Amino acid sequence: MKRYAAEFAGTSILVYFGVGSAVFGIDKIGAVGVALAFGLVLLALAHSLGPVSGCHVNPAVTLGMLLAGRLLPAEAGRYIAAQVLGGVAGAAVLELTVSAGEITDRTKALGANGFGAAVNGVGAFLLETLLTTVLVLTYLLVTDRIALREPSAAAAVGLTLAAVHLAGIPLTGASANPARSIGPALFAGGERLGQLWLFIAAPLVGGILATVIATRLHRSSAAGENAP
Amino acid sequence: MKRYAAEFAGTSILVYFGVGSAVFGIDKIGAVGVALAFGLVLLALAHSLGPVSGCHVNPAVTLGMLLAGRLLPAEAGRYIAAQVLGGVAGAAVLELTVSAGEITDRTKALGANGFGAAVNGVGAFLLETLLTTVLVLTYLLVTDRIALREPSAAAAVGLTLAAVHLAGIPLTGASANPARSIGPALFAGGERLGQLWLFIAAPLVGGILATVIATRLHRSSAAGENAP
Amino acid sequence: MKRYAAEFAGTSILVYFGVGSAVFGIDKIGAVGVALAFGLVLLALAHSLGPVSGCHVNPAVTLGMLLAGRLLPAEAGRYIAAQVLGGVAGAAVLELTVSAGEITDRTKALGANGFGAAVNGVGAFLLETLLTTVLVLTYLLVTDRIALREPSAAAAVGLTLAAVHLAGIPLTGASANPARSIGPALFAGGERLGQLWLFIAAPLVGGILATVIATRLHRSSAAGENAP
Amino acid sequence: MKRYAAEFAGTSILVYFGVGSAVFGIDKIGAVGVALAFGLVLLALAHSLGPVSGCHVNPAVTLGMLLAGRLLPAEAGRYIAAQVLGGVAGAAVLELTVSAGEITDRTKALGANGFGAAVNGVGAFLLETLLTTVLVLTYLLVTDRIALREPSAAAAVGLTLAAVHLAGIPLTGASANPARSIGPALFAGGERLGQLWLFIAAPLVGGILATVIATRLHRSSAAGENAP
Repeated sequence: MKRYAAEFAGTSILVYFGVGSAVFGIDKIGAVGVALAFGLVLLALAHSLGPVSGCHVNPAVTLGMLLAGRLLPAEAGRYIAAQVLGGVAGAAVLELTVSAGEITDRTKALGANGFGAAVNGVGAFLLETLLTTVLVLTYLLVTDRIALREPSAAAAVGLTLAAVHLAGIPLTGASANPARSIGPALFAGGERLGQLWLFIAAPLVGGILATVIATRLHRSSAAGENAP
Repeated sequence: MKRYAAEFAGTSILVYFGVGSAVFGIDKIGAVGVALAFGLVLLALAHSLGPVSGCHVNPAVTLGMLLAGRLLPAEAGRYIAAQVLGGVAGAAVLELTVSAGEITDRTKALGANGFGAAVNGVGAFLLETLLTTVLVLTYLLVTDRIALREPSAAAAVGLTLAAVHLAGIPLTGASANPARSIGPALFAGGERLGQLWLFIAAPLVGGILATVIATRLHRSSAAGENAP
Repeated sequence: MKRYAAEFAGTSILVYFGVGSAVFGIDKIGAVGVALAFGLVLLALAHSLGPVSGCHVNPAVTLGMLLAGRLLPAEAGRYIAAQVLGGVAGAAVLELTVSAGEITDRTKALGANGFGAAVNGVGAFLLETLLTTVLVLTYLLVTDRIALREPSAAAAVGLTLAAVHLAGIPLTGASANPARSIGPALFAGGERLGQLWLFIAAPLVGGILATVIATRLHRSSAAGENAP
Repeated sequence: MKRYAAEFAGTSILVYFGVGSAVFGIDKIGAVGVALAFGLVLLALAHSLGPVSGCHVNPAVTLGMLLAGRLLPAEAGRYIAAQVLGGVAGAAVLELTVSAGEITDRTKALGANGFGAAVNGVGAFLLETLLTTVLVLTYLLVTDRIALREPSAAAAVGLTLAAVHLAGIPLTGASANPARSIGPALFAGGERLGQLWLFIAAPLVGGILATVIATRLHRSSAAGENAP
């Protein structure tokens, strides 16, 4: 149970801080500030929750771990359910903060991901697939297990997420994580809700691709070849 | 005594650098620069003072540690007194730098926290509670003790504080720390002093919430469940 | 084979994320955002691929390692071939994303490096040589071998690359890496392709200089002298 | 000899990258970019040169180490000479890059520190003293010796330097390091050269203050008191 509680709490914190930083003040902190908010929160969560659950906080990461044989299907299902519920909870508390606090939403859509203005649907699908491939690949390569216990692994996944956002925010707002996209889209509704499928499908394709690549690159299999 | 001296010095340095970066140049470094100043100074202090006192430099963190049973009430009282005095000392030296140096205060209020313009009181209370919950939760989860000896824990608490500021600066200036708020408010006076209660009460509520959550998530209790 | 696959994948990811962040949104994330994208992606790749291949992802680094006697000439040749092919592949997928996605290229040249506007050819050669010298020097000093296994070494090379970009982006776009420059120049064509020679030659000179300096400074040779 | 060569090379690289990032493009990267350039280069140098010489690259740090009894006076003198010469060499190569490259100097004074516009001399002295106190205090607390061997110490000193620059750039350009100030002032001449004394004297006072504080806070003396 502790693992699922960690995934629920972690995803809700990631959404509240990351998406919230854009909603509260992307006019003041810019895309760099939002990218750092997402990346630094994931880095911190990976330090605190990584030893408990691996700090996936992302169904695409859990899918990659499942395909890599590090989780059983039933466990993966519970991980993903906890993440999606956590993302919805984070978005709900964010929506509550905005409405109760009479805050101007600087994204006009509770930070929901979308496409059409800066990139069309084909480009958005390709972009989100590739961004997620690299994020999940990092998770798969920096650890051999489901838990994430090494501090360096926490830094790697967090800072990869920051880079994912630096590349993706100007085009789609950067998802690379279905659980991050579902909550805000439910509250934003309209066109953003209609585009939600892409921010579920593309990251999952990215998770699959990452597993394929990881099996060819994993460091633990390279020990013999690697000696100087 | 060394522990209290460390908390006094650490809090005064945090206030001088973090609040000072806003006072001296938020027009030049922006909210991202101020967020990084707070976060990187806490990260550095956590490396240097963490092994001495735990580098709380924040009454909300000390409250969480007290509730988690890692400090005795008398110790916690002395920690908090040292932090508040340190925050006042840091603000006093900052005020002295501004007046003696004929510096234009870019925040017009010695960087005191406030609400009303970008968020109302209800939203500010909710926001500050949640920001502090995550900050204190990180402190509680990344170490098992009062001292903070692991470098990765120093990175985690410092970078969490940066993320807290990225989310909160556009709305309240981001406190999440009563000792950071008290000093500047005393010098700013007026409306900011009248709003100070919120930046004491909300972070303390956040510290309590964090302790409740931490007891359910703490990694050290998850050892058995966590094996792959 | 795993080492060359790692260099191919790593270079293509570096080009897609680093160059892509500029192409997709340098108007939104600024030169600081692009510098962080390059640096954080290299940091993450160094964590994940460093133990496999050393994560050079840069012919100038491989040249330095060859001159330092850590690689055989045949190995270095294969490393460099994999890096150049990886850079071309990354640029090709970036070009595909831009054209298929109807994205406005904010660099107007697929992020190819160039000179003439902010610096002339002599200054660009000097600058690129010095930027690369420091980058390769960091690689040579933070490890004793071809593989990069220490997390601190990954942080050092990644954050050095960020600093290289902070200094160089306003003048040449910052290369310090022939493999990063070749791919985008092939797609940009015209003047940028005509200037490509400089972004191959200067980094290689920097790699040679770094090896000369490293032999005088290497920490492992200083053990005796260094005791307090 | 290797230690002095390391201090010479390190200081010249710090000046070329840090000051150069302002000269080449502070209009593009802003004060945050310059602060990160200084901080990330010092972090990287501390990883690569810390095990050799301690990576002081700053006479105020060496003064603190001397007063703390970690260096002999003759050694400290040679350290400082190497640092000053390195700073001059870095500034000379920067000046050469600017003139040979026909680059517009965005600081109009080769990045020399100064005061008068945003802060008067009294405030500048106070500010530079306090910034340096915290920088040197970090050096003294994160290690017990002259050499800097722990990766976490490298991160701490580098990121403290970034915070020092976030606070100080809007007022004086941020020195906290006589060797960083001397080189550029020699090339800038005029009023900046006339103000150079402050950027030598104030950092040295800061180094002395840091030693006084460090003796009261040093973690190694707190072992007994610190047990939970």
